[in-house]
Amino acid sequence: MNYKTMGRILSQILILEAIFMIPSLCFALYDGTFVTAVAFGVTIAGTLLAAGVLYLLCRKAENALRAGEGMICVSLSWVFMSLIGALPFVISGEIPHFIDAFFEMVSGFTTTGASVVADVEVLSRAVLYWRSFSHWLGGMGVLVFLLAIAPSAEKNGGFTMHLLRAESPGPNVSKLVPRMKQTAVILYLLYIVLTVVDFLFLIAGRMPVFEAICTAFGTAGTGGFGIKADSLASHTPYIQNVTTVFMLLFGVNFSCYHLLLLKQFKSVFKNEELRLYVGIVAGSIALIVWNLRGVYGTIGETLRHAAFQVASIITTTGFATTDFNLWPEFSKAILLCLMVIGACAGSTGGGMKCARVLLLVKTLRRNIRLTLRPQRVEVIRSDGQAVDERVITSTGMYLAAYVMIVFLSFLLLSLDKFSFTTNFSAVFACFNNIGPGLDAVGPIANYGGYSVLSKLVLITDMLAGRLEIFPILALLSRSTWKHA
Amino acid sequence: MNYKTMGRILSQILILEAIFMIPSLCFALYDGTFVTAVAFGVTIAGTLLAAGVLYLLCRKAENALRAGEGMICVSLSWVFMSLIGALPFVISGEIPHFIDAFFEMVSGFTTTGASVVADVEVLSRAVLYWRSFSHWLGGMGVLVFLLAIAPSAEKNGGFTMHLLRAESPGPNVSKLVPRMKQTAVILYLLYIVLTVVDFLFLIAGRMPVFEAICTAFGTAGTGGFGIKADSLASHTPYIQNVTTVFMLLFGVNFSCYHLLLLKQFKSVFKNEELRLYVGIVAGSIALIVWNLRGVYGTIGETLRHAAFQVASIITTTGFATTDFNLWPEFSKAILLCLMVIGACAGSTGGGMKCARVLLLVKTLRRNIRLTLRPQRVEVIRSDGQAVDERVITSTGMYLAAYVMIVFLSFLLLSLDKFSFTTNFSAVFACFNNIGPGLDAVGPIANYGGYSVLSKLVLITDMLAGRLEIFPILALLSRSTWKHA
Repeated sequence: MNYKTMGRILSQILILEAIFMIPSLCFALYDGTFVTAVAFGVTIAGTLLAAGVLYLLCRKAENALRAGEGMICVSLSWVFMSLIGALPFVISGEIPHFIDAFFEMVSGFTTTGASVVADVEVLSRAVLYWRSFSHWLGGMGVLVFLLAIAPSAEKNGGFTMHLLRAESPGPNVSKLVPRMKQTAVILYLLYIVLTVVDFLFLIAGRMPVFEAICTAFGTAGTGGFGIKADSLASHTPYIQNVTTVFMLLFGVNFSCYHLLLLKQFKSVFKNEELRLYVGIVAGSIALIVWNLRGVYGTIGETLRHAAFQVASIITTTGFATTDFNLWPEFSKAILLCLMVIGACAGSTGGGMKCARVLLLVKTLRRNIRLTLRPQRVEVIRSDGQAVDERVITSTGMYLAAYVMIVFLSFLLLSLDKFSFTTNFSAVFACFNNIGPGLDAVGPIANYGGYSVLSKLVLITDMLAGRLEIFPILALLSRSTWKHA
Repeated sequence: MNYKTMGRILSQILILEAIFMIPSLCFALYDGTFVTAVAFGVTIAGTLLAAGVLYLLCRKAENALRAGEGMICVSLSWVFMSLIGALPFVISGEIPHFIDAFFEMVSGFTTTGASVVADVEVLSRAVLYWRSFSHWLGGMGVLVFLLAIAPSAEKNGGFTMHLLRAESPGPNVSKLVPRMKQTAVILYLLYIVLTVVDFLFLIAGRMPVFEAICTAFGTAGTGGFGIKADSLASHTPYIQNVTTVFMLLFGVNFSCYHLLLLKQFKSVFKNEELRLYVGIVAGSIALIVWNLRGVYGTIGETLRHAAFQVASIITTTGFATTDFNLWPEFSKAILLCLMVIGACAGSTGGGMKCARVLLLVKTLRRNIRLTLRPQRVEVIRSDGQAVDERVITSTGMYLAAYVMIVFLSFLLLSLDKFSFTTNFSAVFACFNNIGPGLDAVGPIANYGGYSVLSKLVLITDMLAGRLEIFPILALLSRSTWKHA
């Protein structure tokens, strides 16, 4: 195991995290919440010191990480980032128990948005900002960010495609342009521009600036932390509709935006995953509007709530404008299916990803044809290109791991006092990085009532969901450490 | 498509079915339930006539069926068998609606045991016998039976390994002995002997003869239809324990019994699937006993109920001695996991099968090792033998199809008025051929309240579960009929 290179990358990430905490420190000082200011100050200073020492110890590492090491490195980075990010919550006393603070932070970085806080409105602005910013950073990925700003990434032995692959969602991660660093820069530029545009639209709708920042962060990262107890329910239809549109936009594969900039409209229009995504969104909204007839006053209001909730769930954001727990069973069942499907690969959204669903359906259809005519040879194509059989096998294994983790987590959560529906939807909502589930973890409730064991299970689920299972399994696998 | 050969096989199966209805006719005549006697008489006569004509039309067919045709033939046979088997229920008026009768019959043949009948104790003995016998026949398979009794199977072009494969459960069906007909004979002999031994044990416990027959059929086929409203709750602990043991025995791969007869004790002892099965059963019983402490009077009673329910669910039988709906969430969660895992391949039980779970876990572990060290080449072994990569791929696809069918069925069932838990467990209980689910379809309830659409969905699920998905998908697939 290449500990030195991993140590150097980890130290850089933690230094970056400390720097990103400075705005929160400023908010705390400005608002005069001194305990919180001290909490952030101490965390920043301590992290810079520790990470600085680690960097000095490891700065001479030259070797590139191999595939497995890249995975381990990414997993460890995310765990340490969350552990340190949770410190200000605990030190300030705003989330007094460490396990709760850790849960909240993992939920933030993994863009889940599941909260243990009963009333977010009593939290200080510094803490609210940090929660929401963690969504933004976690959405596109902190290693991708590091890669984008690193002075000479290509020469820097530690950065390899493996790191990008381990942190980016989707069955088949590829570079937008030949140079990897350039890819990271383009991704973050697109991300920043889209976030700013969303922010401006929200400001135009007279949303207070601080709330608009936090909402834009939550939308961009498809996270879901808000600064109000009722999420977006009390906002104007304009704000809700803007958020619907931007949630959907952030659920699209960012390579599509890159293609748009290159004026390759045809490839975007023909993108199979995008078509599936749009089709599922439109179909789900239509079915829910039909199912909800009579629940809201007008068809326009029904459409607004249906579209918002569908966008929020399929992109795994988790904002809400209404308590969908009260919707009829069919609508809830649709939302549950959307939870699993998730957004597009290469977006900031979670879930299985439309690309994987598409690949599984294609492989399944091939398998049916092959059982009928075993002698045939058939290649699976995606957007006209043949898909590597290894990608197909690992997509099947992704599903197998997914199902096993769901059942195991559900089993462990059942030791708690909650109902079948609560436990099942809690696992789904955390593993798919959505946030709110049903019943006791529904959109107007929170995860505070679970035991420490259940919270640890859900923390693992959130990390496994965001990093797409294998990096976390590799971290927990015996064979990783046997030959270390 | 080889319609003539398929027609001949179908006609033979229907003739067989008509013959198997004769005992019910006798019961009806003996009991003096004349309407029921007429119902069975008419059905037997009509079926013999129609099937006889079909046989005469198709008797000269010589060509063997190809893999895909074998699947279609098996699927069609099961659908027609169930359609015709449902006729006596409707004609006698004991289950007046055809869709209900069809549901009941599919539930019987697929050894599900899910019932639409609110009170089974008002049904006539003729109908009760037919319901229970359908479990017995469906458990080992009607085509396997036909193969066992056919005079010259090897020369008879229609019978191929494909038929056996399509009807027998498990990822990798192989013959016990080189000759296929001999394999079928051995399987049925073992099946009959075990059933008779179970029957004798029940008689020894002073169970009435008719009830012992029906209970033995239900246990052997791992079906679950009983003749009492409270299943086995009111029986003595002896009867319950005997049934626990025999349910577990019928959940074992029958090739193990064949090996025992050949005195190859070592191979049985080392059988990986059997070890997993025993381990899961023992572990689940231990966990449930721990979780149920304080619910029942004594530890012995707790152990008896826990063992019975675990055996009933993992073998997908569906008998009950207590309403496990009232158990704590953790115990219910364990039962839900057992529903999905299911019994051993090559047994009469349903579910995913332990062999598939084992194969998926092994492949997953290989995949983790391969992501860590991509250059490695690794073969998956089962009981010391290398597993064909095609079996691995199709196991992955089996899981994909499984998950998609579960979600699609759940979505359609949600259009009905029942709760999340009811719908989810109904799909699981039917698809895995168990019978009772939770809440409104729990062990003391029934499926009568569902709409016609939901019943059709569940019928498809039961057939897909029993025939292991692909034959039913092939039947419903467009590409099957495009080149027909």
